Amino acid sequence: MKSLEERIRKDGVVIGDDILKVDSFLNHQIDCQLLEDMAKEWHKEFGDAKVDKILTIEASGIAMASFVAKEYGVPLLFAKKAKTRNLAGDVYTTKVVSFTHSTTYDVMVSKKYLNQGENVLIIDDFLANGEALKGLIDLCKQAGANVVGCGVSIEKGFQAGGDTLRKMGYKVVSLARIKAMNSQNGIEFE
Amino acid sequence: MKSLEERIRKDGVVIGDDILKVDSFLNHQIDCQLLEDMAKEWHKEFGDAKVDKILTIEASGIAMASFVAKEYGVPLLFAKKAKTRNLAGDVYTTKVVSFTHSTTYDVMVSKKYLNQGENVLIIDDFLANGEALKGLIDLCKQAGANVVGCGVSIEKGFQAGGDTLRKMGYKVVSLARIKAMNSQNGIEFE
Repeated sequence: MKSLEERIRKDGVVIGDDILKVDSFLNHQIDCQLLEDMAKEWHKEFGDAKVDKILTIEASGIAMASFVAKEYGVPLLFAKKAKTRNLAGDVYTTKVVSFTHSTTYDVMVSKKYLNQGENVLIIDDFLANGEALKGLIDLCKQAGANVVGCGVSIEKGFQAGGDTLRKMGYKVVSLARIKAMNSQNGIEFE
Repeated sequence: MKSLEERIRKDGVVIGDDILKVDSFLNHQIDCQLLEDMAKEWHKEFGDAKVDKILTIEASGIAMASFVAKEYGVPLLFAKKAKTRNLAGDVYTTKVVSFTHSTTYDVMVSKKYLNQGENVLIIDDFLANGEALKGLIDLCKQAGANVVGCGVSIEKGFQAGGDTLRKMGYKVVSLARIKAMNSQNGIEFE
C-alpha cells in the first residue's frame, strides 16, 4: 500500500537492522485516517471472502482492527494478555513467545465470543516471527472457527513468520513488506 | 445516549451491586458501529471546543477513542501500562490505582506525543472512582497540555469519580450514567 510505505519512509525510525519504530503514527500515537484507509485496502485484498468476526490482540492491534470491523460491519474481538495464571474455565488460552520482550505470555478470549464455524479475519500490526498470529490462529482452532486469513500492517519479509504461515496455507496480506532495512541505508520494500 | 442505554439493558450483565459486565459489545467483543455512533455523540456534546488530540489508556479505551480521533480528524494517543520499572527518561508517567484488580500500576506516554498547549480530549470506557481519568489528566498537566474534557461511555453515578472531576472543573460527558444497579432489579439510569 503506497501511502503506508511512504508514511513508514517518512516517519518510521530504523534502529540497528531489525527494529522499526512506528510509534508516531501506528502503535502509540495513531493516525486513524490512515487506519481507515488500511481497513479498506484489506477489504479489497480479501475480496468477497465471508467474514463474521475480526480478531486481534491487545494493545497495538486494537485500533486498526476496529476500523476493519467497522468496514465489514462485524464484531471485533481482541485477545487479552492474561494477567493471572488462574484463568476461569470459560476462556480459550494459548501461549505467545515475544522476541521483543524475551518472554512468553498467555493470551485468552472468552469462549462465548469465538464460535464453531465462524469465519474469522485476523488483524495485527507487525509480522516478524509470526508468534502472535500463530497464537490467534490456535485460539480459532480451539473454537472450531475458520481462519479466513491474516491482515498485517508491516511484515518484516526478512524474518520467517510470513513465509511459514503461507506454507501452512493461510492467506497473509501485508500492506507493507520490508525486504531489508538498517539505520544507515533506510528501508527497502518488496 | 438512548441506544447505548438500551444496549446496556439488553446485553449488560450486573453482578452483585457494583459490577457491570459489557464484554459482549464494549470491551472484549466490540460493536464498532455503536462506537462510531458514540464518537459522533461526544463530538456533538463537546460542540465547537478545539481538540488537537485524543488521549486514552490501553486496552479497553483504544477502540472507542479511535473512532473519536477519526471523527475529529486528529491523532489518537494511548497511554501504556508500564511493563518495567526502568522507564526511559523520555516518557511522562503517573500512577493509577485499580480498584477492580486491587493494584497500583504505572502508565506512561512518550513526551514526543503530548505537547505544551495541545487541546486534549480524554476518552475512556468506564468512570467509577475516576482513578484512570485522573492519571490521564496528570499526564496532560506534566506536558502542559490543556484538558478539553473527558468523554466516558458508562459512568457509575453512585461512585464518586464523576462528581469529583466535575468539582475540579472538568467537563465530563458520560453517554450512559447509572444511578443504581443490582443483579435482582437491573439497572436504573439517571
